[in-house]
Amino acid sequence: MSLNEMRRDYLLDRWVVIATSRKKRPTDFVKKQEPAKAGSCPFCPGNESMTPAAELLYVRGKGGGIKNARDKDGVRRKDWLVRCFPNLFAAFSPPKEGHEKDRIKENPFLFEAVGHHEVIVESPCHDGHPGVAGLGQLNLVVDAYVDRLEALSSKPYVKYVSIFRNHGLEAGASLSHAHSQIIATPFVPRTVNEEIGASRRFWKRNHECALCSILERERKSPRFVWENDSFSVFAPWASVNPLEFWILPRKHQASPLEMKRKQKEDLAVALRVCLGGLRGLLNDPPYNYGLHIAPSEESSEYYHWHVEVYPKLAIWAGFEKSTGIYINTVTPEDAAQSLKEAAEKEQKTLKL
Amino acid sequence: MSLNEMRRDYLLDRWVVIATSRKKRPTDFVKKQEPAKAGSCPFCPGNESMTPAAELLYVRGKGGGIKNARDKDGVRRKDWLVRCFPNLFAAFSPPKEGHEKDRIKENPFLFEAVGHHEVIVESPCHDGHPGVAGLGQLNLVVDAYVDRLEALSSKPYVKYVSIFRNHGLEAGASLSHAHSQIIATPFVPRTVNEEIGASRRFWKRNHECALCSILERERKSPRFVWENDSFSVFAPWASVNPLEFWILPRKHQASPLEMKRKQKEDLAVALRVCLGGLRGLLNDPPYNYGLHIAPSEESSEYYHWHVEVYPKLAIWAGFEKSTGIYINTVTPEDAAQSLKEAAEKEQKTLKL
Repeated sequence: MSLNEMRRDYLLDRWVVIATSRKKRPTDFVKKQEPAKAGSCPFCPGNESMTPAAELLYVRGKGGGIKNARDKDGVRRKDWLVRCFPNLFAAFSPPKEGHEKDRIKENPFLFEAVGHHEVIVESPCHDGHPGVAGLGQLNLVVDAYVDRLEALSSKPYVKYVSIFRNHGLEAGASLSHAHSQIIATPFVPRTVNEEIGASRRFWKRNHECALCSILERERKSPRFVWENDSFSVFAPWASVNPLEFWILPRKHQASPLEMKRKQKEDLAVALRVCLGGLRGLLNDPPYNYGLHIAPSEESSEYYHWHVEVYPKLAIWAGFEKSTGIYINTVTPEDAAQSLKEAAEKEQKTLKL
Repeated sequence: MSLNEMRRDYLLDRWVVIATSRKKRPTDFVKKQEPAKAGSCPFCPGNESMTPAAELLYVRGKGGGIKNARDKDGVRRKDWLVRCFPNLFAAFSPPKEGHEKDRIKENPFLFEAVGHHEVIVESPCHDGHPGVAGLGQLNLVVDAYVDRLEALSSKPYVKYVSIFRNHGLEAGASLSHAHSQIIATPFVPRTVNEEIGASRRFWKRNHECALCSILERERKSPRFVWENDSFSVFAPWASVNPLEFWILPRKHQASPLEMKRKQKEDLAVALRVCLGGLRGLLNDPPYNYGLHIAPSEESSEYYHWHVEVYPKLAIWAGFEKSTGIYINTVTPEDAAQSLKEAAEKEQKTLKL
């Protein structure tokens, strides 16, 4: 299998993965893909042989505690609670052995898509999505994010680790079993780079972290949604998506790698309450979320990691795609009001 | 009706229109919108009273020629061939009288969404889309683009005119009657600005237009699709969308306003052949297209106007939205091969 290509746009600093390894014929698009039925789901327990050997495998140990086990000698364990493995249709793939060092770019418009692309199956339960899952299970998902982030960040050719979740067919989830994905890239992506640059400028001017300052203001604004000891949630001022919300650590923190146990548990609660609230509000709508993380030691002073949640309620059409301007038909203030009520209701039901 | 707001992102040079005038409640998203049935279509002849008075109204004159008529005294003409009017759910609206000059920006994160948002109904025939329409009708669509571009560019508060088309529900067309849209903005959009900047740098370095140089190379590459006397079509090297293709004037030209009659007719043919080919290839798939135009006299030396066509065959999910990196599962070379065969077949059928 050949490595995918990264191609740079003629004019823009915009890169695209030409995914030759998951390549389709143009006519493959004639019919819409249906989500797999639960019975034949490759992510359900018992079907482990349909996916590669695990990179991470949380199982219950003899004493009742959780430990990270391994698939061995071609045998796949079936008693897992969270299972992470390379995506069969990887956009980025590890370098061949002996080629782990920084790759030489000979053509500024083209290089190999070296990196990693993994699937985290969040639960043995097909429908164990974070809006309905138990907190114990969600704690394991958060642990898995941190574990894989740590493992992938340490590779010499990895410059950024993107952790994200697609929920629902319309939001790009081709399989409906509860899962997240991780893509590790050999460069810092454009959007993160822009955020880092703007945060650095703010920090030089104001001697404080931009998102710390924004958070302090938004907590007291009509865009505030919810918070617990460790995380605050608000609908951002210039939300690009209807009902968009962000989950931020209340104290400055550059990366999820810095979280202590209590903070990890609080993140699981924030995800459960807010995504459960969204689910209740709009009858389980499709959504995407992504973690934005400081990519380097240098940026850790001024970049504040967070989760951005984008409900998929509108279609980006000709105008958005041609101009980079977005039209949002729900004001962030209205969005926050609805999300706030929904989160409070969800929290009450959970008796937290 | 209050004007919409333009909001700037906290960190990024990214703007979003908060469309208070077409504002929805969050719960409006629970059910998916269905396209209007042809019988009740507000764009069909006879239903003109369902839309505002026309800004442009092509009708057949007594001698058989086409002229631009007017709706008068509250009476709407029904004998039109192309009809353009303000979008009832406008993202950008004209300033109040006496406020036509440059608006003062008091808050760098907020200003009024002053401008225009119009609908061009391309045909009295509900299904008269460019992939199936007659060339005579398509010539009128091209004329209408140029006429409205000229009229809107001349407004003192307009800095850019975006002409685009959404085809199919999945590509954001909430009404299925053949139509394009025009949005005139009080600033040059981010994507156009980036293209202009990169083109200027190329021009300073190489003393030629970047797209002239790219076109010369791509015409002889496996990404070439089709051409006639005035326009060349190719699948761009770093296509972000599967089956993406661009239509470029073969000779340097900054804006559609510079087109002569023969060139306009050749554009109509290029649209008919390529969009008809795409339709034949993938059974009428959804798509978006947008015109990219030099916004100023200054940029006309180095910016080359063109049409970018984006078939809507993939979903931009958590990774794309969080990182600004796109994964395309069709190589532009494969796309071009399929599009080339489809366009040649279409041209044969048309006996051009």
